[in-house]
Amino acid sequence: MSTVAQFTERELVARIQDHFPPPPDWVLVGIGDDAAVVEAERNRVEVLTVDMLVEGVHFDRRFTPPAAIGHRALAANLSDVAAMGAEPRAGVLSLGLPADLPAADLDGIVSGLASLAARYRLHIVGGNLTRSPGPLIIDVTLTGTVKRRQVLRRRGARPGDVLYVSGTAGGAAAGLEALRDAAAAGHPDPSGFEDAARLYRFPEPRVRLGQLLARNRAATACMDSSDGLADAIRQLAEASGVGVEVDGESVPVHSEARAWFTARGRDPVVAAMSGGDDYELLFAVNPRAHGRLRTVASHAGAPLTRIGVCTAERTLALRWPSLSSADALPPGYAHFR
Amino acid sequence: MSTVAQFTERELVARIQDHFPPPPDWVLVGIGDDAAVVEAERNRVEVLTVDMLVEGVHFDRRFTPPAAIGHRALAANLSDVAAMGAEPRAGVLSLGLPADLPAADLDGIVSGLASLAARYRLHIVGGNLTRSPGPLIIDVTLTGTVKRRQVLRRRGARPGDVLYVSGTAGGAAAGLEALRDAAAAGHPDPSGFEDAARLYRFPEPRVRLGQLLARNRAATACMDSSDGLADAIRQLAEASGVGVEVDGESVPVHSEARAWFTARGRDPVVAAMSGGDDYELLFAVNPRAHGRLRTVASHAGAPLTRIGVCTAERTLALRWPSLSSADALPPGYAHFR
Repeated sequence: MSTVAQFTERELVARIQDHFPPPPDWVLVGIGDDAAVVEAERNRVEVLTVDMLVEGVHFDRRFTPPAAIGHRALAANLSDVAAMGAEPRAGVLSLGLPADLPAADLDGIVSGLASLAARYRLHIVGGNLTRSPGPLIIDVTLTGTVKRRQVLRRRGARPGDVLYVSGTAGGAAAGLEALRDAAAAGHPDPSGFEDAARLYRFPEPRVRLGQLLARNRAATACMDSSDGLADAIRQLAEASGVGVEVDGESVPVHSEARAWFTARGRDPVVAAMSGGDDYELLFAVNPRAHGRLRTVASHAGAPLTRIGVCTAERTLALRWPSLSSADALPPGYAHFR
Repeated sequence: MSTVAQFTERELVARIQDHFPPPPDWVLVGIGDDAAVVEAERNRVEVLTVDMLVEGVHFDRRFTPPAAIGHRALAANLSDVAAMGAEPRAGVLSLGLPADLPAADLDGIVSGLASLAARYRLHIVGGNLTRSPGPLIIDVTLTGTVKRRQVLRRRGARPGDVLYVSGTAGGAAAGLEALRDAAAAGHPDPSGFEDAARLYRFPEPRVRLGQLLARNRAATACMDSSDGLADAIRQLAEASGVGVEVDGESVPVHSEARAWFTARGRDPVVAAMSGGDDYELLFAVNPRAHGRLRTVASHAGAPLTRIGVCTAERTLALRWPSLSSADALPPGYAHFR
């Protein structure tokens, strides 16, 4: 089994390049010079975002196959581009490779990334390769474009605006726990939690939804839920200067996640809202824009669920209507402390 | 002594942000949203480049102070932007931080990077923070702009074009060796090799020179020498489809590097050409454009030395005129094999 250490940097670059289609006309200089050169798109502004995935922090090679590592690295960035309402355009890929990484795993990583990129007509125009003394490191920077007046921000929500979230919550978090447990028990896949595992390994960024919200001016604020739905709600509320009342019973908890958390004696809604890696969009809608939202919903390719409302009073409450009770919003996923 | 693990991600972002000036008008959305948003610059194309520095591969914290780590991470990228003839514009900073990194070291790293950015009116518009289970990781992505017809590429040199290099060669490589030896002996700095150590720790990217070459259309091809002068010559020649005859006696070996390599029984020219981390520009000039080159040279802020000539025969030779002998070009710095 050959490892990356047996190849020159140039051979590895050629190997990576093989996974990507030829660049379009607007890429004036692609892979292989000191830097890439691209034409700007007229009448649009540029979105710029970066995300680093580090082995042992963001993924575990025991249960995250190479294609999933590549997919996840790009999905995190595409989700940020989506949350701004932008269309993905160009990306650069920076890899830190342990010497013992099998060359076939590098192929798998790049292949997973390239498949997702192709679906969104995103072009990888350059990058950087280096050795890593320890963990596998994947850092992706993306550019995207959006009309200036259609940029979606975290701030902009007003009291009375209704909060929506796409897809489901908690699936990736439950999938990660189930994958960890299965790996510890020596099983390749967690029986009964295949869809949750898939959501962890191959999350689908809501690129189309973000663009639809932007073009239709349907949302007053938007962000992605990569650090958990609770964290997204907190950040959007804070950036907008509003409070939020979330109806805990309306949160669309993924069915396998509900089963997983319930079986472990945890409140499924709280666990789902606290878990990370969902890559759904949370957004606020002015009640008068519900017609626009219907247009968006019919083309979004994902269910959109009303989960709460923005309030003038700047508190964050999680209400349980059938119990006539309320809790504080649970915490989000913490990277550091 | 507080470490980064004692802070929340938000506190660390605020701490980092404190080092940067307020963003200019063309930054529509800066740090603190899902992604940054910038206006494109009219009538210019965009350059995009990324470089990752990993502890234990690209720097050793024993003899690379925090400010130098930040400086070097940005210099590597600025050098790539310079090699394309572009003006630096916006950047995103992605950091992987070990839990035990002192918060004061994070401040030092960002401060070193911010000082260099300010000198070139580069604005850091966003980024990403994550934990690292092992090495400190700094990945910087830069954008720059250049007029479409002034882009400098590696290809474009023709037989008869004269090769020039800026500054000196081998200083950073000798500085690194001297710093390693001094650290092993328990000394903070290598006596007698202070300038070489400075070139390693705080290399000066040739941003102004790159832009002057581009604006004056003085170069037919250009690249930076970050992987060594020999590697740069080889790559420029290959991309341009030419051979090269280098006059070994004309290579501007840094004086301390000459002393360092000579004292260790190594050919100083070969050692200087093979060492990395120089961040000088290698470029080819059509003999008829020597007037333009004089204009460039008078404003470049760095000595420019003629080191060879491009040939139709596609071989790479290192000539020693006073010995009437020739060698093959030495290898460059190898990241992998």
